Formats: sequence, C-alpha cells, structure tokens
Amino acid sequence: MWEQALKKIEPLSKNWLDIAWKRIDNLTKPRGSLGRLEEMAARVVAIREEERPSLAGKEIFVFAGDHGVVLDGVSAYPQEVTGLMVKNFLAGGAAINVLARCAGASVSVIDIGMKENLKDAEGLIKKNVKRGTGNIAREPAMTREDAEKAIEVGIEMADKARDNGTVMIASGEMGIGNTTPSSAVFSVLLPAEVIDVTGRGTGLDEDGLIHKVDVIKKALENNQAHFHDPISTLAAVGGLEIAAICGLCLGGAAHRMIVVVDGFISSAGALVAMRLNPTVKDYLFFSHQSFEKGHRTFFEKEGLRPILDLDLRLGEGTGAALAMQLIEDSVRIHNEMATFEEVGIEPGA
Amino acid sequence: MWEQALKKIEPLSKNWLDIAWKRIDNLTKPRGSLGRLEEMAARVVAIREEERPSLAGKEIFVFAGDHGVVLDGVSAYPQEVTGLMVKNFLAGGAAINVLARCAGASVSVIDIGMKENLKDAEGLIKKNVKRGTGNIAREPAMTREDAEKAIEVGIEMADKARDNGTVMIASGEMGIGNTTPSSAVFSVLLPAEVIDVTGRGTGLDEDGLIHKVDVIKKALENNQAHFHDPISTLAAVGGLEIAAICGLCLGGAAHRMIVVVDGFISSAGALVAMRLNPTVKDYLFFSHQSFEKGHRTFFEKEGLRPILDLDLRLGEGTGAALAMQLIEDSVRIHNEMATFEEVGIEPGA
Repeated sequence: MWEQALKKIEPLSKNWLDIAWKRIDNLTKPRGSLGRLEEMAARVVAIREEERPSLAGKEIFVFAGDHGVVLDGVSAYPQEVTGLMVKNFLAGGAAINVLARCAGASVSVIDIGMKENLKDAEGLIKKNVKRGTGNIAREPAMTREDAEKAIEVGIEMADKARDNGTVMIASGEMGIGNTTPSSAVFSVLLPAEVIDVTGRGTGLDEDGLIHKVDVIKKALENNQAHFHDPISTLAAVGGLEIAAICGLCLGGAAHRMIVVVDGFISSAGALVAMRLNPTVKDYLFFSHQSFEKGHRTFFEKEGLRPILDLDLRLGEGTGAALAMQLIEDSVRIHNEMATFEEVGIEPGA
Repeated sequence: MWEQALKKIEPLSKNWLDIAWKRIDNLTKPRGSLGRLEEMAARVVAIREEERPSLAGKEIFVFAGDHGVVLDGVSAYPQEVTGLMVKNFLAGGAAINVLARCAGASVSVIDIGMKENLKDAEGLIKKNVKRGTGNIAREPAMTREDAEKAIEVGIEMADKARDNGTVMIASGEMGIGNTTPSSAVFSVLLPAEVIDVTGRGTGLDEDGLIHKVDVIKKALENNQAHFHDPISTLAAVGGLEIAAICGLCLGGAAHRMIVVVDGFISSAGALVAMRLNPTVKDYLFFSHQSFEKGHRTFFEKEGLRPILDLDLRLGEGTGAALAMQLIEDSVRIHNEMATFEEVGIEPGA
C-alpha cells in the first residue's frame, strides 16, 4: 500500500508554476518584493492545480510514540510524560491546541506507538503498532513490518483528511526521548556525523549531551547491519511516530495536499519520505528552524530553507501551526490582491 | 507636544516581567521550548501590565510621502505611483490590505507628505505637512518645524488609536524613492558607511545602486551642517513618512501599546525615536529582516533580532502585518495554555 502512494506522487508541472508566476508578477507590487511569500503561493497553486487555491480545511496530526532508549537516560523527562501530554492534547490545553486554534486548524492525536494504553481516552485515534520501540542502543527499534504498518497509518490519515476536504495538513509528534532516534535517522540518511545532528532535546546539560551522543553512536554500531534502505534504517534506529510522519508526507504528496513539516523529529520523518521518493519534497513546507542543533545540518545538507526561525524546540506541530498561517497569508496575497491593469499602474522593474 | 510623549515613556518593570515569566515557565512545555514566542509574550505582559493581555484592537498606519530626490533617478518607479498606490490602499486591493485582513487589523492611510493632493480620496486621512520633500542631494528635505509637525501627526495617530481601544499598532509607508532618505538617516544616526546601509530598493540594477550611493553621499555632504541632533538630521535628509513613523513609535510607547515596526523605512523612523529616547525600544517589535541590504546593518549595530526573515522588500506595513499574527499567537500561548499543576506533570529541566 505505501508503494502505491509512492508511485502516485507527481512532480509539480511547469505549466502550473508559470500560471502562478504570471499572476504574481502582475499584482500591484514590485516584482519579487514579497519574497518568499510569493514562492510559497506559487508552489501552492502548482500543488493544487487551481488558479485561486482554497485552503479551507486544515488539520494537524500529532503522532505519539515511546522509545526504549529512554532507559539509557537520554531525556530530561520521564516516559510517563508522553501519556500525560497526550491527555493534555485531548483536553485542549497544550501549545499545539492553542496554535491550532490560531491557525484555524483541527488537531488529531494518534497513538501510534505509546507504551501506555490510554484505553478510555476520548478522542484519541488508536492505531498503536507497538507499545514503545526497542532500546536502539542494544537492539532494533522495531521490525520492518512494524515500520511499514506505522507508515501506512500516516498514509491512512492523509487519505481520511483528503476525503474530508482537507487541503493543508501538518505533522506533529509527542514522544519522550524522540530526538535521539531522529538524530540516528539523520546521521544514517543524510549522512552526517552524530555530533552534527545531535542536540540537547528538551533540556539536557553538557554531560547529558555527551552521553546522548555516545548512546546514538552505540545505536548506529549495534544496528549497522540493518541499514540497507530508508525503511530498514527507520525500523532499526527510528521511532513509530517518525514512521507515521513519513507516511503522512507520502500520503499528503500523493493527494496533492500542502504538507507542513514541523521541527526536528518531523523532519526526520520527512527525510525518510524524501529518500523513498525525492519528488515528495515538492509538496513539503518546512515550517521552522528548530533550536535543536542538528536541524541546521539537515537544512544545509538538503539545500532547504525553513519558513520561520524562532528558537522553538517543543515539537507537537507547534512550528507547523505557525507556518500554516503564513502559507495561508501567501495564498490570500495571490488570490486577493489587485493587478496592475486593475489600478492603472505600469508594471515597473 | 512631542517632548511630552518622550517624557511619558517608561521602562518595562522587572516586576511585570517576573509575573509573565513565572506563568510562562509553568505552562505545559519544557522551559524555554517556545523560544522567541515566550520572549514576545513576556514583553507584551510587561508592556500592557495585564496578567492576561488582550490584543483586541489592531491598527496599521500607512504614511504616504514623496521625495524630491527622485529627480536624481534613485527609483525604478515614477513618483506618480505614490498616489496610485494610495488609491489602491483605499480601495483595498494592495498587499497591505490583504495582510491586514489576515491579521484582523484595520488600515489607516495618511497623506503626510504626498506631492499630489488627492482631494476627493475617500477615507484618506489628510495631514499633509508639505507637498513632497526637497531634493536632499542639494538641499534639506524639510525644515525642523515640518519634521516636528510630521512627528506630531504620528503621535496624534497613536493617541486616537489608544482612545479607540487599540492595543497593537503597526507602522507602514508608501513613498517612491523613500529607501534613499532612509539610508541617509541610518548612515548618520547609526552611524554607518553609506555603502553598508544602501540597497536596490524596489528594483535598481548594479549601475542604479552605484548611482544611488553617490546621491546619498552627496546628500550627506550637502546637509552635514544640519546634523546636530536626531530631529535636525531627520529634517535634513529624512522624509515626512519617516518622521511620522518616529512619532507613531513615540506615541505608541507613551501609551504602553505594542508597536510593530515594518521594514527598512519604518526602521529608520524607529531609529530616530530610539535616538530621542532609548527606552522606546522596550515597546518596539521589529517585524522582519528586509531583503534591502542595509537593514541587516541596522539590526547588527543595534543588537536586535527581527521576528521574520522572508526576503520582503515591499514596505506598506506588510511585514508588520505578518508579525502581528505571531505576536498575537504568542499572547494566546501565554493566556490559554494549561499549567503543569493543572495536568499533573512535574515541571522538568
């Protein structure tokens, strides 16, 4: 099933990009003067293949998963916080809930790999593939089958969103310890030195960071036999929420949706998707440069420039929610501004 | 009158900043993990001196002025475009109108120094001080009295906004040629070399840029006898919209409003205000890093970091309108998120 999504992804057509730029260059402003807003709007037109794209329907998917590697002390928070925060998301009190309201987006929370079984949690989308990953410092995070299952949950979420008329989707995640598998995935798939893709997560001190780098190196050493392809790498040293985000990117691109990628962990999922099919990049909007050190390495190596740079390091989809607003602004600029003809100005330089 | 506004501006109280941070650090997220959003929210609390600040009431002021120096060929557009664009603002078809709608802000357009007298323009706020400045390459832009009058119009706008219950105001401008006087003001008041604060404006080529640098150097040479203080400098080589923006910053700070500064030209106005009273900076939110080269010099020299970096170079208040949304988001995070106590998590690192 995930192979089908992969095959459906088409590059943006030059024709639609030309249609977009013809209008953008004819709006009452000097050519190019709205900079990256113009680039975003052009891309949305070409993704949607609509002369005046509508962005009605916005949804943020927060995938929750746990990580065996927290036993090795890579996080400042205990694992129970994953479940407590998921309850907070469902109750509407977390940062992502507030910022989703700001962006006019809905929030869907998915148990993709939580250790705790929140049986009675109302509103939780229950798609648990495995109750927490293995400890990557010693063993694979999951089997290839589990990784594929989690990817397919991401695709399924994109399918449902499309069926509901959603046009713009965003990735988000929650999982104590999940910067560690993300760094491991970046290190293998970029590739990059562990030190260049590893940061302090939610609040490690200097010693904690040194220890975390060691743990990731050990994870890469102990799992190197599995690094055959993007999915086997993801299964060996990734996480279930990272896999689901990979699937969300693939499904979103297959359905010609605007896919807004949150921060460090979401970018790891997006990178797996990009390694499976580089064309997926045409549909991705990288929302922000995280404070997490390794994120810069990712953007540099991939030649990408994120929309925002606000020193965020929370995850949940918070940066994506902020960027959704700017993407919508760019489309409204495209759709609503007057043209030179309409106001009687000669287009200048 | 402007001296009174100057005296009314108070530094933010440490007490209110402490109140803000106490709450922010207790919200359900790792400490500091919302980065610059947290800093913005703390500043808003301390500016407004309210435990849960309301941002209802947002207004963008677009000051229009003309510049004698366009006779020396410093712009890619003819002077008539100032009037045509003002009509476009009033009709609601310009970029600032679209982005103000996105931000939920109203737009007020003020003739502060237009050459053309748009007598019948409905909705235009008529505060013309002078029908275009003198050509700064040869003569002063205006008298000190005119500069003070324009500053007071800016203060008057802030007064009215305050009376209407507005909490957040933003600067914007329109004036063909106005990057040239802005560069001149930056060069004198930062101070900086002309070359380091001069860019291509709305679309000059390499030769045009070299010529523009020459014109600004000539302006500084011919006016240097007037550079006694910030206002005499503004009068000699500035512009009427720059003066009004200076006044808007002073008036906004005096009324404890959130003052969002747009791009390059608005920053020149803000710099004059900061030179008159450094405390005004506590109330200013610099919205974005313009593509205009000299803007970076300004931020570096003043130790400031703008909120956005989207390669905008349009002016009108467009960058400020975008930043208004993010500032509002930051306040909603502060006001609406659950605390650790509320959800039963131990605050971690």
